[in-house]
Amino acid sequence: MVAWKNLDTLDSYRELAGTKGSVDLARVMSGESGAERVRKYALPMAAGLTYSYAAKCVDDGILEKLAALAKEAQLSEKFEELYNGAVINLTENRRVLHQLTRGQLGGQVMADGVDKRAFYKGEQEKIAAFAKKVHAGEITNENGEKFNTVVQIGIGGSDLGPRAIYLALENWAAANHTLKMQARFISNVDPDDPVGVLHGVDLAHALFIVVSKSGTTLETLTNESFVKDALQKAGLDVSKHMLAVTSETSPMAKNSGYLAAFFMDDYIGGRFSTSSAVGNAVLALAFGPEVFARFLEGMAEEDRLSACTDPLKNPAMLDALISVYERNVLGYPVTALLPYSQALSRFPAHLQQASMESNGKSVNRFGEAVDYCTGEVLFGEPGTNGQHSFYQLLHQGTDVIPLQFIGFRKSQNEEDVEVEGSTSQAKLCANVAAQMVAFACGKEDENPAKRFAGQRPSSIIIGEQLTPEACGALLAHYENKFMFQGFLWNVNSFDQEGVQLGKVLAKRVLAHDTDGALKEYASLFGI
Amino acid sequence: MVAWKNLDTLDSYRELAGTKGSVDLARVMSGESGAERVRKYALPMAAGLTYSYAAKCVDDGILEKLAALAKEAQLSEKFEELYNGAVINLTENRRVLHQLTRGQLGGQVMADGVDKRAFYKGEQEKIAAFAKKVHAGEITNENGEKFNTVVQIGIGGSDLGPRAIYLALENWAAANHTLKMQARFISNVDPDDPVGVLHGVDLAHALFIVVSKSGTTLETLTNESFVKDALQKAGLDVSKHMLAVTSETSPMAKNSGYLAAFFMDDYIGGRFSTSSAVGNAVLALAFGPEVFARFLEGMAEEDRLSACTDPLKNPAMLDALISVYERNVLGYPVTALLPYSQALSRFPAHLQQASMESNGKSVNRFGEAVDYCTGEVLFGEPGTNGQHSFYQLLHQGTDVIPLQFIGFRKSQNEEDVEVEGSTSQAKLCANVAAQMVAFACGKEDENPAKRFAGQRPSSIIIGEQLTPEACGALLAHYENKFMFQGFLWNVNSFDQEGVQLGKVLAKRVLAHDTDGALKEYASLFGI
Repeated sequence: MVAWKNLDTLDSYRELAGTKGSVDLARVMSGESGAERVRKYALPMAAGLTYSYAAKCVDDGILEKLAALAKEAQLSEKFEELYNGAVINLTENRRVLHQLTRGQLGGQVMADGVDKRAFYKGEQEKIAAFAKKVHAGEITNENGEKFNTVVQIGIGGSDLGPRAIYLALENWAAANHTLKMQARFISNVDPDDPVGVLHGVDLAHALFIVVSKSGTTLETLTNESFVKDALQKAGLDVSKHMLAVTSETSPMAKNSGYLAAFFMDDYIGGRFSTSSAVGNAVLALAFGPEVFARFLEGMAEEDRLSACTDPLKNPAMLDALISVYERNVLGYPVTALLPYSQALSRFPAHLQQASMESNGKSVNRFGEAVDYCTGEVLFGEPGTNGQHSFYQLLHQGTDVIPLQFIGFRKSQNEEDVEVEGSTSQAKLCANVAAQMVAFACGKEDENPAKRFAGQRPSSIIIGEQLTPEACGALLAHYENKFMFQGFLWNVNSFDQEGVQLGKVLAKRVLAHDTDGALKEYASLFGI
Repeated sequence: MVAWKNLDTLDSYRELAGTKGSVDLARVMSGESGAERVRKYALPMAAGLTYSYAAKCVDDGILEKLAALAKEAQLSEKFEELYNGAVINLTENRRVLHQLTRGQLGGQVMADGVDKRAFYKGEQEKIAAFAKKVHAGEITNENGEKFNTVVQIGIGGSDLGPRAIYLALENWAAANHTLKMQARFISNVDPDDPVGVLHGVDLAHALFIVVSKSGTTLETLTNESFVKDALQKAGLDVSKHMLAVTSETSPMAKNSGYLAAFFMDDYIGGRFSTSSAVGNAVLALAFGPEVFARFLEGMAEEDRLSACTDPLKNPAMLDALISVYERNVLGYPVTALLPYSQALSRFPAHLQQASMESNGKSVNRFGEAVDYCTGEVLFGEPGTNGQHSFYQLLHQGTDVIPLQFIGFRKSQNEEDVEVEGSTSQAKLCANVAAQMVAFACGKEDENPAKRFAGQRPSSIIIGEQLTPEACGALLAHYENKFMFQGFLWNVNSFDQEGVQLGKVLAKRVLAHDTDGALKEYASLFGI
């Protein structure tokens, strides 16, 4: 039987507190000791990726204690309960089933009278069949012409994940001749967002996917209305251009105004929905269903590794353990995610939601206030760009910010140029290798302004190339990491009560039902 | 005479420490007291903007102490020294003259035998004349055809600011019939960046601007080489397609391979170079020189406000004072920048550099270690998107993160749609008003998971519309804020020694001159 306990009630956690400051990262990462750590502190992931944690503030003793923490916190048992369909999301009384969209880690999960794995797989197959017809010109616009663009209308989890993965694979797909349609995204209720996107879209040949689990997301319905207006003004048949991705119980589900509807359900939180119909429809239309299937295979393979019960052989679990150690023992409130891959330009923005919305909680899963820090701030930009931007503070600022690098040996396009004796890809890889050592070891200098204290921990996930499988493995790794972090903090990582108050007050403003500061702020905006 | 002293040596700073916790934000922002604060705690900015700090943890007593701090730290005197041409950037022995690119706040500044204001103005006029010839079809490609696209090749300050402002004004320019050319940006040494951008560009009708102050930025030279290869492969005349923006002393300055060269100099740091030729060339080509001139006017007007010696009537100075209060007295290490404007989607990324590279220092301007926290982590995404992403943590996480909102009464396009009785723009504005009150006041609830503690401070800059002037005023406000923060922390905000070590180690990797961890990391990448 699983026991859900607060982090600070666990003996193994209290033991960890005594290890603070015991690893001199600059020393252990220097010389042969550093080389040995890089060889030793690495774990295989799915799709040929490797998780290297050599430059983290850990040693064999701390790793042993982290493994004990994983056992005492019953991380594997909790994950097992989750993938077997237990009601993990207590506040909303829901199962948490996003892993079932890409595989079956445990036993059959029945809910609402259906086998949920079969349901998700069925949606994937429906989307695949639909996408193939679109690509083959069997489903066309009102004039019998092929569609060339797909536009996702969604916000939050219906936007960030699908957008990040589209950008991650767009150039790979072009290089591999499988870019079937261009994708665009409309998310913000700011009218300049839909207007700007629609200016660049050939409306007559565009398919729009309206994505809202509840079918009531105000931003999304508003933008749907924007698009319908534009289609009508262009003399186009709206129903030939609109798809829905929603839950079967939503008002959008039985609406004949859509060309087709594909389904997810309440067991999949928005920020974990990239592998469901939410990401599937737009990505299968853009890249073909085979590419999306490869992406899901990478996720499923990584999920299986996350189910490994040895914490030191489970990359997502170990990553979570080290990050909680950094957050709660070492006291670092921020983590930077730094992919050395331009294709991953919006991956940090997606993980920002996945992490901060999941674990930014002050109460445990039973609604009791916790006495320790939970969810961290996560931000990041691609390298080497970030080196020319905020790395100054990472290297020489007064706060230590743990770093998570991502890098690949090969570029996606494999087109390259040699300048000063090396290719661009070699320069990119040399930079990330250099940064990890610079952050860990620092450098003495007579001039204090040129001194680097070092002692700044980092990890890296390295792969051969950012393929669909690698992309899936990366995403599943982080989804599972955030889940394990939530288990350690004993919070419910699957609700988001913190988004409600703002919605309620915004409705009051729109209804002119305001007083005090709210009325004054509204009047500043002329409302 | 100005005295440069550490923050913790100032009497007025020590007095501020006693005010920690004295403002119950939830209480003072409730009821009539909150309304009164919104009316009272606001300052006019340039271009019709307003800086509202009602929801910050300040009251009249704290504001008085902050004003005393500004006086004791001699913020106005330091700014005066700076704009009159003193060598403020001590470590690099340089003046700091970026404000001169948009106006003359003080006396004539002579350097290198020239009047620097006249020099910058001259470059602006040269660019204007060039851009007009391009737009008129007097400067064309090798076939006498007009250019339709401009591509900036630069990284860090040569990329983020110009890119953020281009995106900020692209749709405004389209709506106002002054979008002369589309702009694209290549920055990353990852070869997938230039390949991806070039796939979407009509090479024969594209002008490329290579931007590097030193003329030696490896990423930029590498990407220049990439582009030249592509032009040659397409059978185009490279010299008809390439411009340079650099310093007069750089190897790029006297290179006949460029169609034209425009200049900035060592007195302008990359992250403060948007108002120099670095931003001017691409933005004047994209929008016309008149639009860029309007952007500079907004900056100049805001600069004049920043020179006001009353701290409580100087928005940039007050913003800096409050943020240092939050960082050093209240102990908040992170600030979120949240523009409710999709056009400002990359404005936070630019300000992230401008802030973190400027003030992420552990030594004061004389190279002595400081005993207090300096530069904060800055991150952000546009609202309402962020509400559906990381706001959960902002509302209910265990750490308090001060917030900086930006909003406008009107959209840029003024196209809109009415859904459920309100326009999209009204929904956008209602949301930002609601968020400020939700963050400050919170909400009690029987269910602790639905409880909001409030007490989370925010400010907002509100304007009528995101015009070129408003855009300039916003940018100058933040540039000057970061400068004043640096004065308070007594750091040199204008050098970036922290970027050097990584460069040195990367060169060693490329030269195969590695050992220890560096060698092992390099070998993971197959180098």
